[in-house]
Amino acid sequence: MPGNKGVKYEGPGKVEVHDIDYPEFTLQDGPGVHPANVGRKLPHAAIIKSVATNICGSDQHMVRGRTTAPPGLVLGHEITGEVVETGSDVEFIKNGDLVSVPFNIACGRCRNCKERKTGICENVNPDRPGSAYGYVDMGGWVGGQAQYVLVPYADWNLLKFPDKDRAMEKILDLAMLADIFPTGFHGCVTAGVGPGSTVYIAGAGPVGLAAAASAFLLGAAVVIVGDLNEQRLGQARSFGCETVDVSKGDPKDQIEQILGEPEVDCGVDAVGFEARGHGREAETERPATVLNTLMDITRAGGELGIPGLYVTGDPGAADEAAKQGSLSIRFGLGWAKSHSFATGQCPVMRYNRQLMQAILHDRVQIAKAVNATPIPLEEAPRGYHEFDEGAARKYVLDPNGMLSTAA
Amino acid sequence: MPGNKGVKYEGPGKVEVHDIDYPEFTLQDGPGVHPANVGRKLPHAAIIKSVATNICGSDQHMVRGRTTAPPGLVLGHEITGEVVETGSDVEFIKNGDLVSVPFNIACGRCRNCKERKTGICENVNPDRPGSAYGYVDMGGWVGGQAQYVLVPYADWNLLKFPDKDRAMEKILDLAMLADIFPTGFHGCVTAGVGPGSTVYIAGAGPVGLAAAASAFLLGAAVVIVGDLNEQRLGQARSFGCETVDVSKGDPKDQIEQILGEPEVDCGVDAVGFEARGHGREAETERPATVLNTLMDITRAGGELGIPGLYVTGDPGAADEAAKQGSLSIRFGLGWAKSHSFATGQCPVMRYNRQLMQAILHDRVQIAKAVNATPIPLEEAPRGYHEFDEGAARKYVLDPNGMLSTAA
Amino acid sequence: MPGNKGVKYEGPGKVEVHDIDYPEFTLQDGPGVHPANVGRKLPHAAIIKSVATNICGSDQHMVRGRTTAPPGLVLGHEITGEVVETGSDVEFIKNGDLVSVPFNIACGRCRNCKERKTGICENVNPDRPGSAYGYVDMGGWVGGQAQYVLVPYADWNLLKFPDKDRAMEKILDLAMLADIFPTGFHGCVTAGVGPGSTVYIAGAGPVGLAAAASAFLLGAAVVIVGDLNEQRLGQARSFGCETVDVSKGDPKDQIEQILGEPEVDCGVDAVGFEARGHGREAETERPATVLNTLMDITRAGGELGIPGLYVTGDPGAADEAAKQGSLSIRFGLGWAKSHSFATGQCPVMRYNRQLMQAILHDRVQIAKAVNATPIPLEEAPRGYHEFDEGAARKYVLDPNGMLSTAA
Amino acid sequence: MPGNKGVKYEGPGKVEVHDIDYPEFTLQDGPGVHPANVGRKLPHAAIIKSVATNICGSDQHMVRGRTTAPPGLVLGHEITGEVVETGSDVEFIKNGDLVSVPFNIACGRCRNCKERKTGICENVNPDRPGSAYGYVDMGGWVGGQAQYVLVPYADWNLLKFPDKDRAMEKILDLAMLADIFPTGFHGCVTAGVGPGSTVYIAGAGPVGLAAAASAFLLGAAVVIVGDLNEQRLGQARSFGCETVDVSKGDPKDQIEQILGEPEVDCGVDAVGFEARGHGREAETERPATVLNTLMDITRAGGELGIPGLYVTGDPGAADEAAKQGSLSIRFGLGWAKSHSFATGQCPVMRYNRQLMQAILHDRVQIAKAVNATPIPLEEAPRGYHEFDEGAARKYVLDPNGMLSTAA
Repeated sequence: MPGNKGVKYEGPGKVEVHDIDYPEFTLQDGPGVHPANVGRKLPHAAIIKSVATNICGSDQHMVRGRTTAPPGLVLGHEITGEVVETGSDVEFIKNGDLVSVPFNIACGRCRNCKERKTGICENVNPDRPGSAYGYVDMGGWVGGQAQYVLVPYADWNLLKFPDKDRAMEKILDLAMLADIFPTGFHGCVTAGVGPGSTVYIAGAGPVGLAAAASAFLLGAAVVIVGDLNEQRLGQARSFGCETVDVSKGDPKDQIEQILGEPEVDCGVDAVGFEARGHGREAETERPATVLNTLMDITRAGGELGIPGLYVTGDPGAADEAAKQGSLSIRFGLGWAKSHSFATGQCPVMRYNRQLMQAILHDRVQIAKAVNATPIPLEEAPRGYHEFDEGAARKYVLDPNGMLSTAA
Repeated sequence: MPGNKGVKYEGPGKVEVHDIDYPEFTLQDGPGVHPANVGRKLPHAAIIKSVATNICGSDQHMVRGRTTAPPGLVLGHEITGEVVETGSDVEFIKNGDLVSVPFNIACGRCRNCKERKTGICENVNPDRPGSAYGYVDMGGWVGGQAQYVLVPYADWNLLKFPDKDRAMEKILDLAMLADIFPTGFHGCVTAGVGPGSTVYIAGAGPVGLAAAASAFLLGAAVVIVGDLNEQRLGQARSFGCETVDVSKGDPKDQIEQILGEPEVDCGVDAVGFEARGHGREAETERPATVLNTLMDITRAGGELGIPGLYVTGDPGAADEAAKQGSLSIRFGLGWAKSHSFATGQCPVMRYNRQLMQAILHDRVQIAKAVNATPIPLEEAPRGYHEFDEGAARKYVLDPNGMLSTAA
Repeated sequence: MPGNKGVKYEGPGKVEVHDIDYPEFTLQDGPGVHPANVGRKLPHAAIIKSVATNICGSDQHMVRGRTTAPPGLVLGHEITGEVVETGSDVEFIKNGDLVSVPFNIACGRCRNCKERKTGICENVNPDRPGSAYGYVDMGGWVGGQAQYVLVPYADWNLLKFPDKDRAMEKILDLAMLADIFPTGFHGCVTAGVGPGSTVYIAGAGPVGLAAAASAFLLGAAVVIVGDLNEQRLGQARSFGCETVDVSKGDPKDQIEQILGEPEVDCGVDAVGFEARGHGREAETERPATVLNTLMDITRAGGELGIPGLYVTGDPGAADEAAKQGSLSIRFGLGWAKSHSFATGQCPVMRYNRQLMQAILHDRVQIAKAVNATPIPLEEAPRGYHEFDEGAARKYVLDPNGMLSTAA
Repeated sequence: MPGNKGVKYEGPGKVEVHDIDYPEFTLQDGPGVHPANVGRKLPHAAIIKSVATNICGSDQHMVRGRTTAPPGLVLGHEITGEVVETGSDVEFIKNGDLVSVPFNIACGRCRNCKERKTGICENVNPDRPGSAYGYVDMGGWVGGQAQYVLVPYADWNLLKFPDKDRAMEKILDLAMLADIFPTGFHGCVTAGVGPGSTVYIAGAGPVGLAAAASAFLLGAAVVIVGDLNEQRLGQARSFGCETVDVSKGDPKDQIEQILGEPEVDCGVDAVGFEARGHGREAETERPATVLNTLMDITRAGGELGIPGLYVTGDPGAADEAAKQGSLSIRFGLGWAKSHSFATGQCPVMRYNRQLMQAILHDRVQIAKAVNATPIPLEEAPRGYHEFDEGAARKYVLDPNGMLSTAA
């Protein structure tokens, strides 16, 4: 049995790389593991040797100390790797397969999974539907910012790349299939983006940029990305987006300058509850800002895709209501415009095969769009820090040195 | 030219029947008419002799004085009648046709109409997409609680009943096609109701009861209706609904008693912004109560259909935020459950033909479900009053004595 | 290990009840078993003690000798029963669960299963996508007209009834969930049936009657069933269908008499390739008759749902083309009317949970609609014979005497 | 009143340019005009000065003499131009507007139009639902290969370009919005093409090439076009398509060489009933070849989009069955693979606005893809001839010299 190293959350602002246990086919106790999951048998699992494992904006919620994540939690839910061992019930996935792991853990056996709603699987998180690797209150599945990680229900969850060599040539692109590419794409799909659409995407972080790349893949006519961070807006412009600097005032006016009208067909929220205000309020957290703006700038009859995370409770929020997850939303405005709103975790499996095909056949340059940047596992703390500072990069950890070999 | 009588709003709590002008093929100035609409030519219009014209809960918002509706406004947007005159551009609708008039006025020529979004037509209301007869801030189209009313774009808007005699036999049912039956049905469709669904409908007013009847028509397994008004709950039980008395506490517990589990598949909001609290808060307006409850009691992955009206501004609201149309919504809860939310006016034309067929072939008893109660036009003030007091009735005005003849 | 008895095909027209092997967690060789499936390990399987197992019209294709089914094949793919043993990988299904078994065998792990297309699973039939129990050229899974039967991928395939006692009270209805109720329902769904539709269903056999019951559940306004068999047409009329006797001439005229117009909104083919002609050609096989009729009598823009079976080869067909599975279809007529055509096995899992709910909550009387008739396992040969003669019955075998106990 | 010139069909193989009547707001009698349409009042119409009007493959069916088109019929249904006069009921379209005219004539007032099925409008063709300009058996609307043409129901039918100058810069692209771009796009949409799809398009004529460009716009991973004509295949390769030369044998083998597997996700028939055989049968008409091939090479669960024209009768067909519009189709193969089939005229209005946006914002180069080639109106006969000979060009007539000015 080889050794294993992984990235641990050790307290607010503190991320460290440590030796961790090599995975077993039984779920062991540990920081954040739900008692009801301890000792769970996993004959359906596979052990993955990570080739690429990304740092995600939602990891930052934990690292900033805005959750109840316990110290010692192994982080990481964006995993791409090679299968090195499979349980007795794994029938179709084989050792040596190069695979993408959807960040949502799903059993493939409950009502929701059967309805393709793998983001809210009923059997993996004793607390409520929906789970993920290395995340607080998600059942306690060990995170994948590590050399080795266990993936349950491997035949169901894993997406095998058809040709290993060709896949390694595009491994940085394929690494985005675990989360942000499908998540951004889901935001666009649920916002009704299609050929000829005009789209506004709130947020130029990795999910926003992935949504923008998705919008182009879906045939959008004009893709406008809004953010406060000039470096990230520059990244958006690098692949053809128009941009709106929300620190400079109401997005509506800037949209009118771009389009000749103040409204877009489709709105995507790639920010979520940690949103800040616009214009002079740009320094202050305004958790409902993005939703209210999207209702304002999306045309009547439009749809709002909301992949940005909103939480049921937020102990660090600015006011009492937001601490309970309540936001002051101009719902009447949306109603008057017959808007619809789609929320929740992206069900990755609904999209990852087709997006893999788009990558393999050069129809999208997702790694370039999000500025995917490989760094060694050991430098994960630096990656977390720079990302939190607003770097226009998507950090990809290289736990087994296979990315540097590929490049 | 015959005389004409109609129901006018004359100030908060004040509704009166007066002589009004007979319609012309040009839009005349009057109370509530948008200046940009004055003098508009209407060669595409038809004049309808009302057979049945209903009082709607949304009329009550004006009558209670919670809007800026001007005195003298002719009320009424639920119209069924006989065509007595057509403009020079009307080609397919003929004098003598018995028709249902969708409450939303639509041009049949703009992008939204072409996309079947007739609730947000771009060409009939100079202020914003969407319009209706006899309603404040909707462009100034004269209301239809009258003997005669003009319907623009008649070929597009009117639904002709195929057989006049058979239609008169079911005229009280067919009168519900103008608004509440499609509106309740739309709430169910957008909530994902289908064969075998469990459904919770907030509100046992006419729209809620119409939603309940629609849910059965769509094959729902269990239809649960919640309200504070015992008489209306009794009406719901009369056609097979389960009921929840929200004055007695959290609907979740009562739902669990009915279903054996505390969540339903689909949630419908047939209340809107004038909602009150549950349990001990039942006497207080709590505009976000229904939305928050629906997120609580709808299962993960479920959809919320929201035909209940939410407004962009509410001068009479209890707090400052609600006055701006902002509600404190537990959006994070909905997000965690991957809920989607569908809002807005029902696009009546998308449904009224098929619902007419269901009525004509005895597949639904909608008049009975909502307790349709015909009264003479002159008694409209009484109807408004009793309805506001919570009568479990849907009042249907009979401006030309044709309902009493039919019955 | 208990003994086991099952129904075997022993040659054209010959069906017999014999002792058969008790199921094992490895697929054994036997009549009709695909070599590539022999020895397949099945730790994901469950063994079911049959409570009800139905004779299906598609079984008759084999029994009539129109296929290459080998003698000794154990028949039966409509199975309802109790779990008595589970493999090491079965996690959620438990001994004692009362379950419905979808007739299509699916792995829950391939692309098609993940896309809810369980009728064309890629991993269970080495010849081509799609499989079923006890059927020729479907991989060799042992049939379920037996006391005990093995169901692979039990967590994925089985639908558990929530309350065993309540389920036993409606067991004849629930027995239809394995095949014909979802199959008829799928025909209606793919034909676009909804509230207010007018529907023509070709064929009053069990699938046609199940489609008719489904159409009502979906809210159809008028359901018209066509057949040659007066007894079956009488059965259709017993629950509110209109009927067309196709032996008396062109259905179009009879439809016009019923509806006042010669076309319906939606067409369903519940007959398939063994269709006979209309009117004077009623004695002759005319494999394209139903399709051509449906194009004739379905309105422009309508959809055709085609659950009726068409085969890739038919050695016993009347002409050379039909032997190759080629039919002479008036495709230009369908094109001129912008028809769409939906074919294939019903993916049962897409519908069975919701239809179960509709049964358990008394929204549909499917057993009564198809005239479900329980008989002892030993009388299976009689059931096959009478059904082939055109009895208006759906025969339900009772291999363990549990139906007679329940009744 | 200005003069008017147009292209007339004068008999098999004979196309001539003649003086024709200037349009009036009443439908006049003439070759091919349905008696019931003579004298029809058209206050809702607009007169268009043609800027671009294309020759279509479906015009060739008439010109080859395979229809009952009468000599003297003015041809042309692909029209782009400037509004020069409007009827009394036209409210939103104005003189000077530059517009695209959908080839299907639709009233905007019947059930089908209200359901967005404008390809089968019930009110414009007395014979059956669906109509077009300048086409046999379509009601007798005068064709648009002319300097001036009348468009009924102008507010409904016309798509206005938002900026006239910008539009003239892309006028050859925008000219494809009248028919082939939406038609090809509809083929792809109904075939289920989306991001990552592999697509086979039968036919490299203008509709096939437009379908291929549409597939890329929809995000397809691999687009394979099959034809017999090497020049057209070269045109397909010019914008990134893979190609299959069907004269060289079974497409399945060539597809396997391209993809590594013999099946695609989605199949599009851009050929229709005048198909020829494959391989050695390439010289012979085989009207069902394309359909049978698509079933063979489309994966199980796939959808077939069939924009290629199939006719209800074909007097010039090779055999009796085809003369009646009956084709020998391997329907059992499609059934076994759970294929669905979508047929009929493209409802242009469902797509043209969004495709216009894609053109105006440089997301697609449709004129280049189909090799749009402007020629003077007078050279129409040469255009017809060369196109019939298989030129890899889409001929665009320039009746008022405005294209040469623009270029």
